Amino acid sequence: MSNFKIVATSDTTRARAGVLQTAHGEVETPVFMPVGTLGTVKSLSPEELIGCGTQMVLGNTYHLYLRPGCDVIRRFAGLHNFMHWDRPILTDSGGFQIFSLAKLGKVTDEGASFQSHIDGSSHLLTPEKSVEIQICLGSNIIMCLDDCIKYPASREHAKEALELTTRWAKRCKNALKEGIGSLDLTVSKPPFLFGIVQGGMFKDLRKRSAENLSEITFSGYAIGGLSVGEPKEIMFEIADFTLPILPDNKPKYIMGTGTPEDLVELVALGADMFDCVIPTRNARNGQMFTKKGTINICNARFKYDIKPIEPGCTCYTCQNYSRAYLRHLYMSKELLAYRLNTIHNIYFYMKLMEHMRTAICRNKFDEFRKAFYEGK
Amino acid sequence: MSNFKIVATSDTTRARAGVLQTAHGEVETPVFMPVGTLGTVKSLSPEELIGCGTQMVLGNTYHLYLRPGCDVIRRFAGLHNFMHWDRPILTDSGGFQIFSLAKLGKVTDEGASFQSHIDGSSHLLTPEKSVEIQICLGSNIIMCLDDCIKYPASREHAKEALELTTRWAKRCKNALKEGIGSLDLTVSKPPFLFGIVQGGMFKDLRKRSAENLSEITFSGYAIGGLSVGEPKEIMFEIADFTLPILPDNKPKYIMGTGTPEDLVELVALGADMFDCVIPTRNARNGQMFTKKGTINICNARFKYDIKPIEPGCTCYTCQNYSRAYLRHLYMSKELLAYRLNTIHNIYFYMKLMEHMRTAICRNKFDEFRKAFYEGK
Repeated sequence: MSNFKIVATSDTTRARAGVLQTAHGEVETPVFMPVGTLGTVKSLSPEELIGCGTQMVLGNTYHLYLRPGCDVIRRFAGLHNFMHWDRPILTDSGGFQIFSLAKLGKVTDEGASFQSHIDGSSHLLTPEKSVEIQICLGSNIIMCLDDCIKYPASREHAKEALELTTRWAKRCKNALKEGIGSLDLTVSKPPFLFGIVQGGMFKDLRKRSAENLSEITFSGYAIGGLSVGEPKEIMFEIADFTLPILPDNKPKYIMGTGTPEDLVELVALGADMFDCVIPTRNARNGQMFTKKGTINICNARFKYDIKPIEPGCTCYTCQNYSRAYLRHLYMSKELLAYRLNTIHNIYFYMKLMEHMRTAICRNKFDEFRKAFYEGK
Repeated sequence: MSNFKIVATSDTTRARAGVLQTAHGEVETPVFMPVGTLGTVKSLSPEELIGCGTQMVLGNTYHLYLRPGCDVIRRFAGLHNFMHWDRPILTDSGGFQIFSLAKLGKVTDEGASFQSHIDGSSHLLTPEKSVEIQICLGSNIIMCLDDCIKYPASREHAKEALELTTRWAKRCKNALKEGIGSLDLTVSKPPFLFGIVQGGMFKDLRKRSAENLSEITFSGYAIGGLSVGEPKEIMFEIADFTLPILPDNKPKYIMGTGTPEDLVELVALGADMFDCVIPTRNARNGQMFTKKGTINICNARFKYDIKPIEPGCTCYTCQNYSRAYLRHLYMSKELLAYRLNTIHNIYFYMKLMEHMRTAICRNKFDEFRKAFYEGK
């Protein structure tokens, strides 16, 4: 029995609406996951996330492994209890942060050695270790460790990285099988494991990676190595090429992307799942999303503005606070500023996903997309 | 008709329970007001304040005058709308911050000139100006501008300051009368004006100040110039001396104090109102109040601690989060840490006040006090 069911498709695009079953409830796709790096989506309470319509959050294995560490989270039987969140959690493998944030040591077949960005301590992340940590975190969806390359990368480098990613993916699948044996299945359900397609910006390599992973078979497939500095048109080209060659009966996840426009286009291309720090990070920088584009809440023109960020928006922030107040909080560096801004941006993203899903279910995705670009 | 009614008194102490009527509802005394310096009690939403049992907040006239300024708050017809808070607000006169935070210029009979701590701009705060700003803020209770002296101060200095405070108090009362004329009474109700007793640590001067202010007559009386660095026993001695010589049919307010122990002792001495940054500031420093004393959430012994800050506490934080999680958030400098800590501390203070009031109403204040010191 599959954990993913497609409930509607768009006639004119590859957009699709689905339902993903997890041990912590159903997730309606397409879905956007706010990033809860350290067991908290920065500045928000779980109740606020739910109030914004959040179905699932992403946790960062690298960060949680370093702080507070698995020994702490094990006492809570996982991240859900620890952070007071009872909806689904997806965790990444830790690979991306090792390659982008830590001081990377050697990458060998065994795994990736790195030094913590916090205290410089040395660690080795292997595929087995990554799965073990993610099982300890109690995630509903766990990701295979992959070899993330920078942009631009040579064909040779991209090829080696994808081959290593494939070998690691096999080991992750085996590690999960063995890890399930150690789980007390009366309290924990085994997570779903997703493979990650690599291959840089080379279509034939992406194809090979997709085929390799499909052969191993996973519960879902992610496209990694996008939004790593490449021009937008290349990102869309690779996504457009790769999404349809992934198994259609499984969820397809574009990692680490993107702007509202990116999400609309990638949903049109057939993607089901997304995560990104843009809504939360931008909020903390005063960049607020509206249907007409972003506004910067610091702008002097908002000093006396009694209107909400977006008139008509039904988020908690827009229902109760003015631009002038939010500007005042932000200029005064008040803690409440970051929260109120984040609530609006997360709500904006969640509504966007909800509207896309509704449009797909009504087979009106084109109309939706047209209205979206008209700022309606 | 009076706006303050005493509903119960303690037989064995001077503790009393009252009800203060304001245009934004009733306040049950003794009451503690969290400090909302810049139109926000740092890190909390108004809903969270209410969830903690907050009846009234304090706003700082000095801070709000500088940021966002009266021109902004006027557009919102006052601070209540601006900050989305519909319960009573008390504002201070601005004097204390001018004397402690700004670069103070000359203090003359006219007023106090100062330079902003933000941009160095020059301002003159007169009694009339302070009342005008507080009317603009739409406060329910406004305070007379007073001349706040440091500890220790010479008798001569304390005497001059109290005499100036008396002259300013008269002018504040006149300014309020004139200010009321400018109010649209269909939308705004005139605030209550409180006088502030000064006189340093000299009882005869405190007596003279109390008599002077009582003669002018105010809706309430505050004791200023305490908790300014003097030894605790002197603070209690002056409060003990001054509280009973203030009119018993009016609320008595000790400004800028204190710890939970201070509040218990000052209530026993007959004080009705308090404000202090201790619960909020300490929370942001990881210092959490419990019935057995304060704990520092950073402490390594909490690393694996699945218990709440205070077992049995019914605040949102204790109901949903462990010491280990709060320690993790705090060590990681996560924004949620400050909020969850603040919720607990404010709730602790509000419950303390509520328990004191209940004890007074049942004429069991002594029993309450005994249990309090036993950490029950």
